[in-house]
Amino acid sequence: MSPSQSDLQDLAHKLRIHSINATQASNSGHPTSCASIAEVMSVLFFNTMKLDLKQPIHPSSDRFILSKGHAAPILYAAWAEAGLFPVSELLNLRKFGNDLEGHPTPRLNFIDVGTGSLGQGLSVGCGMAYVGKYYDQASYRVYVLVGDGESAEGSIWEALNFASHYKLDNLCVIFDINRLGQSEPTCLQHDMETYRKRVDAFGFNAIVVDGHDVGELIKAFDEASATKGKPTALLLKTFKGKHFPNIEDLENWHGKPLGTAAKGVLEHLNSLIRNKNVSLKPKPVTDDAPKVSISNIRLSAPPDYEPSAKIATRAAYGNAIAKIGKNNARVIALDGDTKNSTFSEKIKSASVAQYIECFIAEQNLVGVGMGVTCRDRTVAYVSTFATFFTRAFDQIRMGAISQSNLNFVGSHCGASIGEDGPSQMGLEDIALFRAIPGSTVIYPSDATSTERAVELVANTKGICYIRTSRPNTPILYDANTKFELGRSLVLRQSNTDKAVIVTGGVTLHEALKAHQQLAQQGINVRVVDIFSVKPLDVSGLKKNVTECGGNVVVVEDHYAAGGIGEAVSGALAQNISKFVHIAVTDVPRSGPPEVLLAHYKLDAQGITDKIKAALA
Amino acid sequence: MSPSQSDLQDLAHKLRIHSINATQASNSGHPTSCASIAEVMSVLFFNTMKLDLKQPIHPSSDRFILSKGHAAPILYAAWAEAGLFPVSELLNLRKFGNDLEGHPTPRLNFIDVGTGSLGQGLSVGCGMAYVGKYYDQASYRVYVLVGDGESAEGSIWEALNFASHYKLDNLCVIFDINRLGQSEPTCLQHDMETYRKRVDAFGFNAIVVDGHDVGELIKAFDEASATKGKPTALLLKTFKGKHFPNIEDLENWHGKPLGTAAKGVLEHLNSLIRNKNVSLKPKPVTDDAPKVSISNIRLSAPPDYEPSAKIATRAAYGNAIAKIGKNNARVIALDGDTKNSTFSEKIKSASVAQYIECFIAEQNLVGVGMGVTCRDRTVAYVSTFATFFTRAFDQIRMGAISQSNLNFVGSHCGASIGEDGPSQMGLEDIALFRAIPGSTVIYPSDATSTERAVELVANTKGICYIRTSRPNTPILYDANTKFELGRSLVLRQSNTDKAVIVTGGVTLHEALKAHQQLAQQGINVRVVDIFSVKPLDVSGLKKNVTECGGNVVVVEDHYAAGGIGEAVSGALAQNISKFVHIAVTDVPRSGPPEVLLAHYKLDAQGITDKIKAALA
Repeated sequence: MSPSQSDLQDLAHKLRIHSINATQASNSGHPTSCASIAEVMSVLFFNTMKLDLKQPIHPSSDRFILSKGHAAPILYAAWAEAGLFPVSELLNLRKFGNDLEGHPTPRLNFIDVGTGSLGQGLSVGCGMAYVGKYYDQASYRVYVLVGDGESAEGSIWEALNFASHYKLDNLCVIFDINRLGQSEPTCLQHDMETYRKRVDAFGFNAIVVDGHDVGELIKAFDEASATKGKPTALLLKTFKGKHFPNIEDLENWHGKPLGTAAKGVLEHLNSLIRNKNVSLKPKPVTDDAPKVSISNIRLSAPPDYEPSAKIATRAAYGNAIAKIGKNNARVIALDGDTKNSTFSEKIKSASVAQYIECFIAEQNLVGVGMGVTCRDRTVAYVSTFATFFTRAFDQIRMGAISQSNLNFVGSHCGASIGEDGPSQMGLEDIALFRAIPGSTVIYPSDATSTERAVELVANTKGICYIRTSRPNTPILYDANTKFELGRSLVLRQSNTDKAVIVTGGVTLHEALKAHQQLAQQGINVRVVDIFSVKPLDVSGLKKNVTECGGNVVVVEDHYAAGGIGEAVSGALAQNISKFVHIAVTDVPRSGPPEVLLAHYKLDAQGITDKIKAALA
Repeated sequence: MSPSQSDLQDLAHKLRIHSINATQASNSGHPTSCASIAEVMSVLFFNTMKLDLKQPIHPSSDRFILSKGHAAPILYAAWAEAGLFPVSELLNLRKFGNDLEGHPTPRLNFIDVGTGSLGQGLSVGCGMAYVGKYYDQASYRVYVLVGDGESAEGSIWEALNFASHYKLDNLCVIFDINRLGQSEPTCLQHDMETYRKRVDAFGFNAIVVDGHDVGELIKAFDEASATKGKPTALLLKTFKGKHFPNIEDLENWHGKPLGTAAKGVLEHLNSLIRNKNVSLKPKPVTDDAPKVSISNIRLSAPPDYEPSAKIATRAAYGNAIAKIGKNNARVIALDGDTKNSTFSEKIKSASVAQYIECFIAEQNLVGVGMGVTCRDRTVAYVSTFATFFTRAFDQIRMGAISQSNLNFVGSHCGASIGEDGPSQMGLEDIALFRAIPGSTVIYPSDATSTERAVELVANTKGICYIRTSRPNTPILYDANTKFELGRSLVLRQSNTDKAVIVTGGVTLHEALKAHQQLAQQGINVRVVDIFSVKPLDVSGLKKNVTECGGNVVVVEDHYAAGGIGEAVSGALAQNISKFVHIAVTDVPRSGPPEVLLAHYKLDAQGITDKIKAALA
């Protein structure tokens, strides 16, 4: 039986009251941003959505993302009112050690992804809806609540375009158009018609709704559920601080607890509640999502390259993603219209359903990637040129906060891509991915180790990154070689090594040539394939550094800051007596790869010269 | 006298021919992406735009940005045909050392900003148009040519929203809708009506044009110039590889020279040219932009704080930006609806015209910042929360390639922001800005040094970053203290120092307390204020490290990767005997600032404990 509109309205006021009490207790937070969405939260949680209190992220339950994460208190209040935890717990908001943080994170058992960096929730919702419609083929629906301020973020429009392109009719986006941003009114304020035109033009069933009218909201959500072939957007005309006398619709109340005004506001809200004992429950879940298993993912066949072959690691990624997808239909790849450069197209050729084209919109690409992996529904690989992940650094950062398990593959790293020039060269990608807490960063140097890297990250939690290269390079390893996270590989060594070269990718092959040049001149050096940039093989590197007299040469086709050199010197500072760091030192030019490598002393001759100078 | 349509059409074919010849010579590049825009380039350069060949980036000339930078060959061809350099030079495309690179950069004297990372040009154009309309109040117009593939980038829609909000009727954006992306057709292919609806809804005068009809193009540009109160968008229906027989409108021709097909295509194109001797000149410039001077920018008054005051460095930024703006009307600030948190609102309060609100759209915020500084028209400061610059890492990266002189101020750095939680904490901002080639990174620790940092970056080229903090902190320096790039400051020292603490910001104040605690226990340590993270004070730090027995303690409210610790260990590895790095080690929680600092051993007690353990 559906709840009465009167009860839903009363419950909305209770949510307002909880939001005020919680932010008063923490003496910080955003009560006015909660007040504008009280009615829609009440209707969603107690009339529209199907939820499971025993397993809040049940595979078959409806999904809800609060993209405007600063309204966290009312989200927490809704779950408390639903009965997930005691309402009294809300007063621990923002206390150190409590999971009711300032913005939602998956430390809470009812949160899929962290929000709080604005404009990101809708892309994640798109990923969830894509899985629901095309993979799970289940009845659950996805709701994303977006603030009007954050709708200025381009990522929102990337996501809207994606959702309509893929006809995600199981997705409903709700815009809370409360007119006021943080520091001034939004661009469009209450110009509902312009919102409607924009969202309609982006392919949505766009419905303008009085966001404080429970009856209108119920009707609109029903229409959304009944709409087939396109997603629906509810454009809610609301007021910030609604029902807070002398605060509603006024500026300068963003992100502030009500302070001394709280008492009067609470009295007013209590006076609005007709049924003081109102208590409602969410609808139960229809359990129709399939069981899936994404553990122990393996390549369908081991790497198999002719020892004399020359193959780019990006091409090996293509081989690997096709093979690893063959064994498990829940392994998928996503790309932003670079699939014929990153070679992610190989999985599409093998099995079209296991590929999602995200077009040229990297922020949404990463957000969708986060969405498809939620609730362990898929193992996903997101690929584009390494440098274009800078476009989504904020999303990747939020991925760590979201405890996302998502794999990234960046091709075209370094100056060695050649003629296309600096805008296409990944020269800061290692710095980016190393800066993500808990991340894994792998830099394979041949096709065999690339395939193994793809297999390793499939079974590794957190944000994982594989850096691939454009040029063709020789095979270094056979299929039986074991690769592990946190383990480097020694390729050349002797008892008289004067220095150790630590490197990966194309420059490893140059280092091997330098090793030979130097040996011909009577100078022995050790050559180490870094493979696992993060976690770093601190013990293995320490041993090699010590055995080579503390003389370390790091060579990397990357800028110096945040790369392999700093990882090594940061970890081994006290073991190093001489540190030679060969890296890209300025904005490169267009030119043939070998000329660019030589220019930055990243080629065999450059490495040889630098080592001889350092040892002189 | 205007050129004939026949001559303009002939010239378009000549541009096609040059694009083919150049990419044949380089054996790489994007001739088919040039072919779709041949007519519009001909009309723009030889009929519509006012250009100066003696000074291609003349303050009063029309601006042109090729946002789809991979079509560079036809842009180079247009300037060559205009007479800027010999047509024969086009055959040096993509050769190492030649400035005709794979994608345009300002190494060329006719390029304002680098393009090649897609979707960025329109934001830059918005910045230029804002300056033209509101600051220069001159007649020049801004033209931005955007590819249809890149129109999926959200940054394009952020920029469209900005342009219509500010009624930039001196801006004309041209969409080249050639139907094909890199790896497959675009989302909307030739659905011109959906493009029109979207761009119209975003507040533009949207005109659908046959992009290969010279007459229609001329008319549309005339309409754009005559349209007041709103910007105009030309939606060109075009074909990729237009007039290339057996290539036009076909897939799998992106980013490839024509190879053996070139000969036949060139013959066909030559057959289409009616006047083989066609030669046209751009219209001359109307020189009505004011002269501006942006050199030697100074604070209107020196920093003036009570020695006993406690003030956040973010608040000091507010004071400084107001003071530095007072002395020069071309000093401006831009923010993304966080001006009451970053304190950029102070310049708006002092002089409303010197502030540009960019709303919650950080990519466009940075792009507009790049645009307003082009041709040395302004000195600009872009501010938001430090962590939200991750949203615009790609734009900032392109800023270095663009040789932009742009200042960034990131507030709310580190875990010390407290209760708002990890999504709002800048913990990777130093890593981000250090990874930008040629960048300057300043981390001031009190209000006085913050004001001097603001003054320093006003007069420093390249990408400059100032990291500010949320908590109030004591004053360390008087107004006469000299601050320089590449110079650290020693705050505590003795002849018996057992270690040197290198730090900045809130943790410097903790280090000073730790110094005192340790001194009371008979352990002297040196305390160094890093101030200039990049360039790093290598010689000063080396001296202090050596004098302190090689024992270095770096404390930073930032993740370990790419931060101050790695900068120091990377530069001084061979001088370090013991290296203690105290940094944020995982995703922080919400909580009071002092509790979070204590949790990560970033407070006085934590620093004291770590040093005692290391020296034991």
